[in-house]
Amino acid sequence: MGFWKSLFGSDTLEPTKKTKLRQVPNQSGQIFFSTEKDIDLYELEELCDSVGWARRPIRKVRIALQHSFVVLSMWEHRGGFRRLIGFARATSDYAFNATLWDVVIHPDFQGRGLGKAMMEEMIRELRKSDISNISLFADAHVVEFYSQLGFNADPEGIKGMFWYP
Amino acid sequence: MGFWKSLFGSDTLEPTKKTKLRQVPNQSGQIFFSTEKDIDLYELEELCDSVGWARRPIRKVRIALQHSFVVLSMWEHRGGFRRLIGFARATSDYAFNATLWDVVIHPDFQGRGLGKAMMEEMIRELRKSDISNISLFADAHVVEFYSQLGFNADPEGIKGMFWYP
Repeated sequence: MGFWKSLFGSDTLEPTKKTKLRQVPNQSGQIFFSTEKDIDLYELEELCDSVGWARRPIRKVRIALQHSFVVLSMWEHRGGFRRLIGFARATSDYAFNATLWDVVIHPDFQGRGLGKAMMEEMIRELRKSDISNISLFADAHVVEFYSQLGFNADPEGIKGMFWYP
Repeated sequence: MGFWKSLFGSDTLEPTKKTKLRQVPNQSGQIFFSTEKDIDLYELEELCDSVGWARRPIRKVRIALQHSFVVLSMWEHRGGFRRLIGFARATSDYAFNATLWDVVIHPDFQGRGLGKAMMEEMIRELRKSDISNISLFADAHVVEFYSQLGFNADPEGIKGMFWYP
């Protein structure tokens, strides 16, 4: 309990199995990963606002998180408070493949390796579940970022395609 | 019951809600779609063998089908028997996006519009569930096929990427 008391103060949230916290390595400050699906969706909306994404109905976001295979969030803990600073999720068939969606790092926390750390944590989570085929659709300006993490664009001529009505 | 009797004979399978059969339009012969997830996995393996895919553990295929959002199969019914002739499935977050996997048509049934019909049925199923973002990863030789169905490769520079350990 000592660690958690010092982190949150005595009357704030306590660790449970559900919070699944894990400290982000090689970072100054208290930055943690969580794989808890039941996060504050308004805080998630704020995070997505911070990078200029179009808003989505909270009702649908809730469904999407519930039906994601992995929901990974990144939090800064300071003085008994915590702040959502990163997010990513993966859909999956729980057996062969997983596809990543909604990868975002708050602009205040970009440029210090947290995106890389979060993606490595996501890959670790998926590999733990024996998922061998990890895919994503990358906007042109982040293709290089994902390449450095071991993602290949159009391997063997495979093309990502989207259906437009 | 009359229709089903004539189709299957009196002592073979009867329609239930679970079979979810739907006749494939514009095809000679009795060809049906089903969205039943609990299909014979050895028959599915035979179908995948017929197009030369690498075998996968049945145990994992079962998990993958159970955790797919839509499992679509195509069947030829003849003389009280049915034969699996096509298959596709989609993973999804049940809200925004779906990704297609394992699209296959038996070689004996290729070249008569059944792949197109099956993909249109899949899109119909996904749109019924209000999924707006339908994606897939296409091998180079089928990019043209999917293009004709309304799929765009690399729209706005978005790249499909795969992680390699």
